[in-house]
Amino acid sequence: MFDISKIRIVEDFPKPGIKFFDITTVLNDVESFQELFQALLERARALQPDVIVALEARGYFFSPALALALNIPFVPLRKKGKLPYKTFAEQYNLEYGQETIEVHQDAVKPHQRILVFDDILATGGTAAAAARLMQHFNPEKIDFLFLMELSFLNGKAQIADFHTESLIVV
Amino acid sequence: MFDISKIRIVEDFPKPGIKFFDITTVLNDVESFQELFQALLERARALQPDVIVALEARGYFFSPALALALNIPFVPLRKKGKLPYKTFAEQYNLEYGQETIEVHQDAVKPHQRILVFDDILATGGTAAAAARLMQHFNPEKIDFLFLMELSFLNGKAQIADFHTESLIVV
Repeated sequence: MFDISKIRIVEDFPKPGIKFFDITTVLNDVESFQELFQALLERARALQPDVIVALEARGYFFSPALALALNIPFVPLRKKGKLPYKTFAEQYNLEYGQETIEVHQDAVKPHQRILVFDDILATGGTAAAAARLMQHFNPEKIDFLFLMELSFLNGKAQIADFHTESLIVV
Repeated sequence: MFDISKIRIVEDFPKPGIKFFDITTVLNDVESFQELFQALLERARALQPDVIVALEARGYFFSPALALALNIPFVPLRKKGKLPYKTFAEQYNLEYGQETIEVHQDAVKPHQRILVFDDILATGGTAAAAARLMQHFNPEKIDFLFLMELSFLNGKAQIADFHTESLIVV
């Protein structure tokens, strides 16, 4: 089992009352980094994805390496205005205002098994937007894999139609 | 030699007259993705880094996988306000206004060999800020590795004090 103490907890970030799980300390500890990557790889492999899709930016810390190890394409979802070609876009609500994520329209083929990766499942707003974005591709299935799930925020309810796995649940 | 035609060129992005090199098409082509990764890994290994540092966000597409393959730590440089712990910060100029990149103060040990990775070396402003940021750690050396260098923008002049390599030079 992964040693969760390697994840640094920063109190009151980004604002008072919020406990932030800082995974940069894991990326900086070679043994933990390898261990966590291998554990994610095992989970990802079992889901037999055709493509791995990840959310900007912390979702990119593990997912291109997963795609390389599984020998499948890697597709970055990006914030609005970053992708240069024709895109699909979906909005989601933040505490103040809205955010938009995009994907290139030719990034995923129809009828594929899509694995969406992100580091942390919190309220699930971004994950739900990612699911809507993936529906444009008429996939065979959409699965979700997270490094960590903050279960007290009940983000899973936002993506209840899909198979969801988290390596660490707090 | 890498087949550069796998990189999609988008005209007039992000604004008229700019030719954008879109590497998402490479990440989406498994053969090219693996080939490019292996070529970067060979370059990185030869520089014998103690740590790989990368710029948000496209710098993350290859660098965590490089760090895992070399069994060394990965350190993300991030835009202002994203890192939760104590940071060093450096500014750089954009066409309009300024941007700030940060690194955690405990992310790199003193006297290490640092390899800074980014996807594209353009004007060199971000790379120069990354170099200034790394000087806080009093490193043994700072090397730069890029997937692609746009030589007509002469970004190398901004990091002339450091060893710089690019897989593809246009």
